[in-house]
Amino acid sequence: MIGSTRPNRICPDIADWFLRTVRPASALSYDLIDLAVVDLPFLDEPQMASTGIYNHEHTRLWSERVLSYDAFVFVFPQYNWAYPAVLKNAIDFLYAEWAGKPAGIVTYGTHGGGKGAAQWGSVLQGIHMNRAEAAVLLSIPSNAKDEPDWMRDLDGKLAQFVPDVLRLDAELTALLVAP
Amino acid sequence: MIGSTRPNRICPDIADWFLRTVRPASALSYDLIDLAVVDLPFLDEPQMASTGIYNHEHTRLWSERVLSYDAFVFVFPQYNWAYPAVLKNAIDFLYAEWAGKPAGIVTYGTHGGGKGAAQWGSVLQGIHMNRAEAAVLLSIPSNAKDEPDWMRDLDGKLAQFVPDVLRLDAELTALLVAP
Repeated sequence: MIGSTRPNRICPDIADWFLRTVRPASALSYDLIDLAVVDLPFLDEPQMASTGIYNHEHTRLWSERVLSYDAFVFVFPQYNWAYPAVLKNAIDFLYAEWAGKPAGIVTYGTHGGGKGAAQWGSVLQGIHMNRAEAAVLLSIPSNAKDEPDWMRDLDGKLAQFVPDVLRLDAELTALLVAP
Repeated sequence: MIGSTRPNRICPDIADWFLRTVRPASALSYDLIDLAVVDLPFLDEPQMASTGIYNHEHTRLWSERVLSYDAFVFVFPQYNWAYPAVLKNAIDFLYAEWAGKPAGIVTYGTHGGGKGAAQWGSVLQGIHMNRAEAAVLLSIPSNAKDEPDWMRDLDGKLAQFVPDVLRLDAELTALLVAP
């Protein structure tokens, strides 16, 4: 799941790198969810998500989509020691749909985004997801998109993190087999 | 600042209670910001907020508004062990505007919202605000709005938290005098 929707975002590039890296090695089938395409408004349901009562068509569609997956990998940049609002908003629309599913975290930031990953781990506990411990914390310059040189050889630049991706995939696979 | 915009929210009721409680006792002048009225979209600035380069009029207006205040009290419900997306979004639009200003936290939830307050404290550190330690954590039933009986005597129900409000106000006052 691509967890940033701002203009100039590199989140789709990072998610593509993750998929290129994990797919040849994985027993799992990975799909891509871009929250910019899902295009939810700010939470506008009058009932608590835990009731499962959804007034809006966009919520019902999002619920069906989330129910169709067995596990999630959240890919997002760290903003201000935390996660992007658009990602939290997508979570808060639903509740039971997330419960019990394995979840992986891939963050990026100047220092890897560890603080954002820690906060997100707490949210995953709040919605009762089954969080994989193997996080992928990518050190990337905050203005990477402004430096085309930096973006040019993304696979080379991120090669050191490939083992982390494979560990995350292995853990998600194990959690899906024996939660 | 009212940090929830969902339909059926009780956040304005809580913010009103806070103002009724604090104003007669305070040396400070409190104003009310409702993020439902500010009505920002999801973060849509191409540049990092730390650059101060804003492409959109709504960002420039928000920047001016935030610059016009000396301190902030963030009032919000805990959702999924954390804070509402709309509040984080309003923060992420700006950066230097927040720095150094005293900040108070008022959360509410079935168990007071302490986990949300803790996460928000970390965000406030990320944007270099001067966080007051005296948090106000209000225990309120998650479906309070559906129980008009519960909402009827809000001042009575929340009377036990008045000392916390006064402590927060005193700490904000002290931080403004000698940061």
